[in-house]
Amino acid sequence: MATTPSASPRRLLPLSLGLFQAALLLFFALFVTYDEPSAQAEDANSVANQLYSIFPFFQDIQVMLVVGLGLLLTFLPRYGLSVLTHNFLLLNFSMQWALLLQGLVHHVHHGQVHLGLRNILTAEFAAVTVLISTGAILGRTSPCQLLVMAACEIPIYFASEWAIITHLGVLDVGGTITIHVFSCYFGLGVSKALFRAAQQPVHPKETPTPRSDLMSLIGTLILWVFWPSFVAVLCQPGDAQHRAILNTLLAMSASAVTTVVASSLMDRDGKLSPGHLQNGSLAGGVAIGTVADMAMPPVAAVALGSLSAMMCLLGFKFLTPFLLRKLVLQDQCGIHNLHGLPGILGAAASAVAILVAPDDTAGYHLSPTGGNATKEVAMGRFGGRGAGWQALCQVLGLAVAAGGSLLAGLLTGAALQAPCLAPPPQRLCFDDSLYFKVQDEAESEGMGGTAEEGALAMKEQV
Amino acid sequence: MATTPSASPRRLLPLSLGLFQAALLLFFALFVTYDEPSAQAEDANSVANQLYSIFPFFQDIQVMLVVGLGLLLTFLPRYGLSVLTHNFLLLNFSMQWALLLQGLVHHVHHGQVHLGLRNILTAEFAAVTVLISTGAILGRTSPCQLLVMAACEIPIYFASEWAIITHLGVLDVGGTITIHVFSCYFGLGVSKALFRAAQQPVHPKETPTPRSDLMSLIGTLILWVFWPSFVAVLCQPGDAQHRAILNTLLAMSASAVTTVVASSLMDRDGKLSPGHLQNGSLAGGVAIGTVADMAMPPVAAVALGSLSAMMCLLGFKFLTPFLLRKLVLQDQCGIHNLHGLPGILGAAASAVAILVAPDDTAGYHLSPTGGNATKEVAMGRFGGRGAGWQALCQVLGLAVAAGGSLLAGLLTGAALQAPCLAPPPQRLCFDDSLYFKVQDEAESEGMGGTAEEGALAMKEQV
Amino acid sequence: MATTPSASPRRLLPLSLGLFQAALLLFFALFVTYDEPSAQAEDANSVANQLYSIFPFFQDIQVMLVVGLGLLLTFLPRYGLSVLTHNFLLLNFSMQWALLLQGLVHHVHHGQVHLGLRNILTAEFAAVTVLISTGAILGRTSPCQLLVMAACEIPIYFASEWAIITHLGVLDVGGTITIHVFSCYFGLGVSKALFRAAQQPVHPKETPTPRSDLMSLIGTLILWVFWPSFVAVLCQPGDAQHRAILNTLLAMSASAVTTVVASSLMDRDGKLSPGHLQNGSLAGGVAIGTVADMAMPPVAAVALGSLSAMMCLLGFKFLTPFLLRKLVLQDQCGIHNLHGLPGILGAAASAVAILVAPDDTAGYHLSPTGGNATKEVAMGRFGGRGAGWQALCQVLGLAVAAGGSLLAGLLTGAALQAPCLAPPPQRLCFDDSLYFKVQDEAESEGMGGTAEEGALAMKEQV
Repeated sequence: MATTPSASPRRLLPLSLGLFQAALLLFFALFVTYDEPSAQAEDANSVANQLYSIFPFFQDIQVMLVVGLGLLLTFLPRYGLSVLTHNFLLLNFSMQWALLLQGLVHHVHHGQVHLGLRNILTAEFAAVTVLISTGAILGRTSPCQLLVMAACEIPIYFASEWAIITHLGVLDVGGTITIHVFSCYFGLGVSKALFRAAQQPVHPKETPTPRSDLMSLIGTLILWVFWPSFVAVLCQPGDAQHRAILNTLLAMSASAVTTVVASSLMDRDGKLSPGHLQNGSLAGGVAIGTVADMAMPPVAAVALGSLSAMMCLLGFKFLTPFLLRKLVLQDQCGIHNLHGLPGILGAAASAVAILVAPDDTAGYHLSPTGGNATKEVAMGRFGGRGAGWQALCQVLGLAVAAGGSLLAGLLTGAALQAPCLAPPPQRLCFDDSLYFKVQDEAESEGMGGTAEEGALAMKEQV
Repeated sequence: MATTPSASPRRLLPLSLGLFQAALLLFFALFVTYDEPSAQAEDANSVANQLYSIFPFFQDIQVMLVVGLGLLLTFLPRYGLSVLTHNFLLLNFSMQWALLLQGLVHHVHHGQVHLGLRNILTAEFAAVTVLISTGAILGRTSPCQLLVMAACEIPIYFASEWAIITHLGVLDVGGTITIHVFSCYFGLGVSKALFRAAQQPVHPKETPTPRSDLMSLIGTLILWVFWPSFVAVLCQPGDAQHRAILNTLLAMSASAVTTVVASSLMDRDGKLSPGHLQNGSLAGGVAIGTVADMAMPPVAAVALGSLSAMMCLLGFKFLTPFLLRKLVLQDQCGIHNLHGLPGILGAAASAVAILVAPDDTAGYHLSPTGGNATKEVAMGRFGGRGAGWQALCQVLGLAVAAGGSLLAGLLTGAALQAPCLAPPPQRLCFDDSLYFKVQDEAESEGMGGTAEEGALAMKEQV
Repeated sequence: MATTPSASPRRLLPLSLGLFQAALLLFFALFVTYDEPSAQAEDANSVANQLYSIFPFFQDIQVMLVVGLGLLLTFLPRYGLSVLTHNFLLLNFSMQWALLLQGLVHHVHHGQVHLGLRNILTAEFAAVTVLISTGAILGRTSPCQLLVMAACEIPIYFASEWAIITHLGVLDVGGTITIHVFSCYFGLGVSKALFRAAQQPVHPKETPTPRSDLMSLIGTLILWVFWPSFVAVLCQPGDAQHRAILNTLLAMSASAVTTVVASSLMDRDGKLSPGHLQNGSLAGGVAIGTVADMAMPPVAAVALGSLSAMMCLLGFKFLTPFLLRKLVLQDQCGIHNLHGLPGILGAAASAVAILVAPDDTAGYHLSPTGGNATKEVAMGRFGGRGAGWQALCQVLGLAVAAGGSLLAGLLTGAALQAPCLAPPPQRLCFDDSLYFKVQDEAESEGMGGTAEEGALAMKEQV
């Protein structure tokens, strides 16, 4: 039944992707060798220990991004294959593109590029921003549009991350500001510029079914379980990493309970909304990222988790409909509620935590994308700065992340309107049959649906 | 279509949960700080190593409880969102409640509470008992009832665990007696007191479909894969932990094969029952817990795995129908077959293993909930006791776990009859629509079910 | 509705499996004790570190085999319970059978068998060959046939592995030649001999539905995420293991992107095929196994990943239909495209990598199934051999793996034709109802499908 996009754009995707792979190959062939950690380390044993200290975290994060996030997006009942595949493709493309960009910059300054697991990890962090931003425009965009968005977002992320972490010295070990806030406002900017004033009608295929909500909830649970690894992977090993894991666990546990409380209170009949659970349970993990490794009392983590879940649910209840009505701003997965609001809360919390921290706190804080050296951003206290100045920097960082990305997103979204990027026709949004050779679901259900039909179908075949 | 519970109870759940979160916040604010392992340890490196030795196990256990156990319970085809959510909520509530109780007890004795990953782990073990007990009454109870049950079960578990491990000195590294047997009889007691003599009719929505059986089987497989981490996490690092992992692997592998053999033999046509596979494959993991770290020959693990799977399946075939008919005892998920019978077998096996163990076995055994000190329960041989005495203690521990929890469960179940806890009406049991704002499944299937309908629905919208 | 197999074979499976468990018990009772690593190691700490260095990898591999591979095979929409169960049963049976065989050989030479985690790991690697070979005949064979195949394949695998690794000194750390190529041609041999010239008609139940394709794709993603652990688990800790992880990551990332490119280019409308994604994304992981730990430039991993994905998809497009038409060779899951072609490519790549490697490369290469000693296969350079000779050995190893297994597979397939093994009747292939006591899917959908029906069904019950 599905009509297909016209000839030129349906070749554009594979050809440009193929060209990109060729460019990556060329760059790798010319400039990249492997990092041999044993050259710097004292002995092979210490190299192995370094690997064992990062690899399990890395695998947890891969499960989150590939399986957990993919499943979370399958709440669209007829679009499961597409969201899993687009998520998977965007992760790989963005990671490779980030590796290439990182490598190019490094090559210009230092010559040969030495690749290690830590580089791949920072490239994955960059790719996460793309996966989050996609949530604003999911289902109404073609893979071509998503790839162009990824191509634009990765370099802007690196610039923003450089400004925030390296230049402003913002403390943000779990990427709350640099990843979550950045990608949220980038995605909203893209959505606004792409769909402009044309309010998208509610599509019959975008309503979740109980079955698709179940799959999505499983994705949430997978993300929930592995989130501590995401926050703690780049912490200083030892107490700071231990604290980051505990803070994240407490915050997410509080988020889970508070989500049930708030979702039930918001409904006239006291019923829960699957969408609230899918998002609210994770809000604590977003908010805790800035302060996870700071020496703050555990109660702060619990409070932050509760508060962020509340804000997330209030966002779904009031802010998203308001934005849609007043600003005609489409936010398909509610990324503003899961990444924007808790991210802002987390940034504010970090400023407060810094202001009220006792003077003798020797905090070791690492940038989430600090390259392969575990350099201390904060020597003494906040690299010699006063607490007030550091708190101001946190707020400035938030402003840079949100403002810069919104602007960049608007520009990117305008570019995505190019007709050659094959936006899907309204009628075929949220439907796997546009991008996949699949049986129609109705037919497939009928096929062999009853014993008699099955036997008949068999006779025709044999 | 679903009528909703009356006004008061539908606010009871969120309000009481909200109050609990506030109490937790208050307690944390007043008394809890983070454990700083480096204060005790020699250097940061050793702290990091301690973390790396426990964190991967911890993550495995989280996957088991949140994803694996949740999926296992989705065999109820129209209740998937509810079981996943109730399981998730109960885990978080029980864990926080256990942290609070542990902290209060500690605070009374020692003042400031120092929180570490190990505390969270023992709190999770306490929460596991709630998740298991729930299996007896799943689908016919409201979340309010489940939360009250959790609130009662956690302190009783701590008392029982103190009596069994600390007082009687029972060896039970994998929680076979303290967790599995305890929670099984607690759950059965609750079920008996709650439903009393009223035999529950078979509900049309409690019969699994092939699709829900498939989801449930995936849950089983996830539990099966990560079970060794659950048994071995609190073992003494080194040989004992290595042995615990191997014993669990062998026992569960034997269980898997024996389950297929026994399930096929039990059926007239030689067909397998999905329920048998979902439970029998895990029986070995339950039974091995008491003896996993003991210096026994590997053949014992294989034999125990086979035997426990057989007992589990015989339980499903004969005991569950018998209990339902004679004692009018409802056991929705068959927890007596998965946790009760293999648990008793494991306890008996530990007594035998202790009696026949050679004299020179210097066994290091740790209590599964031994707090944050890795204290040796057994110095020399069983802390200076004779083998006969220790074997007797194992049996006594079993009796305390089963008898005490049954009594406590009966009392708890009686309390759950309070009408304010909003038990679901018979007609709406096993149905997500009672607790969730979801489309009716039939409608959702129809929605866009055929190409024509989809196109029509679209026209009305656009 | 399903007619059942005749009396004798429906008891054959459980009885012979039961006998096997008894034999395993006897062997364990007589000859097997646990390895106590602390006996050889200096201190308990070093034992614990050894465990922590292998156990997370081991768990990752378990997830791959039990959950990932099982889900990958659920693309058959009415056969999900069967594929998950058969996969699970075959893994456990083959692992135990491999342990028994390994133990027997060891016992003959050295007396007492000391079991450790590494033995279980090598037994699992042997079991992987069975799981792969099954892919060629999936759905058209009974569990009895699959178990007999497993019983034959495991000893042949050990013989082949001994010839290739120990005798020829082939370098194959990730099992590309010894596992993937071997099991592929073994499976094809079995398929050819079993079905002979009778071309199997396309069965209406073997066509995937969007829903079964989604489950299968989730399986692929799980395999994709954990694949680096499979390749790197037996590498020398340190630089070689670090390199193996990076090479596998790069190759699989390139495979993922190239699969989308190639699948889209192959279709007239530019649409993707779910089957291509499910297989092509993993092709890089198969191919990289021979060279993963070698000191080659990273560009080689990217190129190998891209190339193997292309070959895999070309295989699906042209080779599989050709083989079916010309050789009447049934390959249900396309194992030749995922394991055969990329395996051959990987073997060729290893020969090239060895020929062009610089002279001073001191490569430490370990056999993937090297028993419990981490012996160095390559001392100095390739154990003193010249590069040319070593490259020739790689090609010879490939020939032995492919030729030997094809022959052995043909013989095994002929044996599987025995009528007592209860091959499923054509009509009931690909159907869970043949092996499971399940409701008919159509009925189960109808059950409570609409609100009215549900209410009616309820009234009849209450």
